Amino acid sequence: MSKKRVVIAGMGFGGLRAAKALAGSGFELTMVDRNNFHLFQPLLYQVATAGLEEEAIAYPVRALTRHWRGASFLLAEISGVDLAEKCLLTDAGKVSYDYLIVAAGSRTNYFGMESVATHAFDLKRLDQAEDLRNHILLKFEQASREPDYQRRAALLTFVIVGGGPTGVEFAGALRELIVYVLSQDHPDISVADTRVVLIEAADSLLTAMPSDLREYACRKLRSMGVEVLLENRVVGATAESVELHGGAVIASHTLFWSAGVAAAEMAGYLLGVERAAAGRIVVQSDLSIKDHPEVFVVGDMACCLQEGVPLPMMAPVASQQGTYAAKMIHARELGNTLPPFRYFDKGAMATIGKSCAVATAAGFRFRGYIAWLAWLLLHLYYLIGFRNRMVVMMNWTYAYWFQERQVRLITAKKRRAASLP
Amino acid sequence: MSKKRVVIAGMGFGGLRAAKALAGSGFELTMVDRNNFHLFQPLLYQVATAGLEEEAIAYPVRALTRHWRGASFLLAEISGVDLAEKCLLTDAGKVSYDYLIVAAGSRTNYFGMESVATHAFDLKRLDQAEDLRNHILLKFEQASREPDYQRRAALLTFVIVGGGPTGVEFAGALRELIVYVLSQDHPDISVADTRVVLIEAADSLLTAMPSDLREYACRKLRSMGVEVLLENRVVGATAESVELHGGAVIASHTLFWSAGVAAAEMAGYLLGVERAAAGRIVVQSDLSIKDHPEVFVVGDMACCLQEGVPLPMMAPVASQQGTYAAKMIHARELGNTLPPFRYFDKGAMATIGKSCAVATAAGFRFRGYIAWLAWLLLHLYYLIGFRNRMVVMMNWTYAYWFQERQVRLITAKKRRAASLP
Repeated sequence: MSKKRVVIAGMGFGGLRAAKALAGSGFELTMVDRNNFHLFQPLLYQVATAGLEEEAIAYPVRALTRHWRGASFLLAEISGVDLAEKCLLTDAGKVSYDYLIVAAGSRTNYFGMESVATHAFDLKRLDQAEDLRNHILLKFEQASREPDYQRRAALLTFVIVGGGPTGVEFAGALRELIVYVLSQDHPDISVADTRVVLIEAADSLLTAMPSDLREYACRKLRSMGVEVLLENRVVGATAESVELHGGAVIASHTLFWSAGVAAAEMAGYLLGVERAAAGRIVVQSDLSIKDHPEVFVVGDMACCLQEGVPLPMMAPVASQQGTYAAKMIHARELGNTLPPFRYFDKGAMATIGKSCAVATAAGFRFRGYIAWLAWLLLHLYYLIGFRNRMVVMMNWTYAYWFQERQVRLITAKKRRAASLP
Repeated sequence: MSKKRVVIAGMGFGGLRAAKALAGSGFELTMVDRNNFHLFQPLLYQVATAGLEEEAIAYPVRALTRHWRGASFLLAEISGVDLAEKCLLTDAGKVSYDYLIVAAGSRTNYFGMESVATHAFDLKRLDQAEDLRNHILLKFEQASREPDYQRRAALLTFVIVGGGPTGVEFAGALRELIVYVLSQDHPDISVADTRVVLIEAADSLLTAMPSDLREYACRKLRSMGVEVLLENRVVGATAESVELHGGAVIASHTLFWSAGVAAAEMAGYLLGVERAAAGRIVVQSDLSIKDHPEVFVVGDMACCLQEGVPLPMMAPVASQQGTYAAKMIHARELGNTLPPFRYFDKGAMATIGKSCAVATAAGFRFRGYIAWLAWLLLHLYYLIGFRNRMVVMMNWTYAYWFQERQVRLITAKKRRAASLP
């Protein structure tokens, strides 16, 4: 009997966990991704704020697969899925499967606002984090030599949209970068010349958190000098301004958008399959799609209801779903089945600044130093690779003691495109 | 009396040393560079061979200037020098000077061969190192899925031109990357499928070294599997081939050029000043230019004769010249002068591979492990920044023990250009 072929599309948290659970267990396993690395997205904001080098949060997929029997990696762009023929279409040819795990993640959702999509930065890819870092540092360089007062103020105004964990963490990290590093680097720019504005549509930040932590986060950010605008929305942007609902305009050269996510384009390749809000694929209780028990969708792309509510698009859900899909495949091969997928919520956390975070776990709430320490340790734990952990720990230690961020480099003005043929 | 203005154009080894020697000593010091960081060029080849992250060999200039009284940094592209008006022309406006130190370094010299200039990689800038790394890794990914035998062989053939330290170090590091890492990552590619070809026009490698070390380096590289072609020249290239003098053609998708350097474009901005071979500026014995005692040229751009021979274009010469120019400015202000510049040759070194290097110092010759250890320690010593030293040391330790290079990432397919307005 020939080995069953399992293909995993996407090597984010969901795909990686599925691969780990399937590796070396008698399947022919093919992992497909457009990048040759797994990216630890939760720390992208630290790359964008000059706290970490890009390489520290990426881990080459082949560094994993070389140790796994029967596993192989294909660097390719996925262009379709042929559900009837059971094969994945890629720019490197067709890849047929017996089981397919779709784990292609999400993209930023600008809700159809073209001007925002054109001018805003978002953080999904590694190169976007480097671009945003370059941009922020460049605005300070430009402000240093800008004689016009108004233009200078606009260069030093940074607008962040979305009060979820990413927006909060980015706002705090950016404020610290400005206060401790950039205002020292530029003797002609004082902290008072700069603005970091965080805009959230709801009436509080971190809406998934308990109310006392929400208020704590907001109070803390404000005490750090971040302007928090609640119950406000961005409706348009130019390269030098941000327009709010109601008509107010903020002169700013930097708009960071973390106010929406939608399923990645690949969701559209599963023809005839039901989609939910934000383009997510509706999955059965075992994470497979209707009429195709051999196709599983996990992570941000899957719309999986629990107690009647779709599970949030976040790494822990993706990880647990990846593991579940792999176990389900094992079970099927043995003629068994598993109880429906259930997400076990271990809690949530967000860091606000140095020695300051909020976290929930097992019904308890934490804030301040203890939550921050827990945040650090958990992120180090979940990061892949001993070397990466060492580099990150060293950067954090260095930043903690010296209030320095040495990765404040403006890189890559000219670039030869490295693309597949 | 107002302070005298010293402007330094270029923050390579020469500019940096000059700045250090002038900082906080009563001058108004302005440093100008198109990058916001000092780049440790001698380790660029390790970035290109996935051994180091880019950030580890770059150090932000402002991290230095913030501690120096009277010093400032200007991120700008230099477009000219007005010797009569004593000002530097940049895209950020004019910068007038009382003393100017020109330290803009060198660029790659393709000796007019357009096809080579179009298709070859060189290593002068940080982004070029990342591009070359992406390219090498991508060729292996493409070879993994290439059915055509000849095309596959061309994808896995890497041609390096120039048997100086850069060519030798790159060839050795690339060979090790292939043998220890990439051939393990790709189970379908064996070391025997790959070629690393090093081409040198002279009859030996490392022509500046004593003959026994030259022969040792050549023997060692060959024993590692590098094909060393001596007394040979590259005369043309396409995207998929390299043409040799005599008509032979090597099918290869990767050509790395380290066979020539010329003065940076800025040399041409010093109008009416005598130029020597490779466009270098002819300097007086005190490193100033004729009729302009207030303008010094240091480093690769300066053609400075010693015993009738121009000094080589290398970091130690630039460093010593930078320090000298600064001391000369101090002396002039005190109404003194200094004896003519003399380069003190501390020796030379090149690493070939793991535990293997060649070095000369104080008339002694070293090779093998001891030379390699000296190479490591000296490069760590000259690297700037405690954090960078730690990151590099960790990478080297990691590579030494585990024969791993984790920075094998193919990054940046799409990129927003971060450019000055």
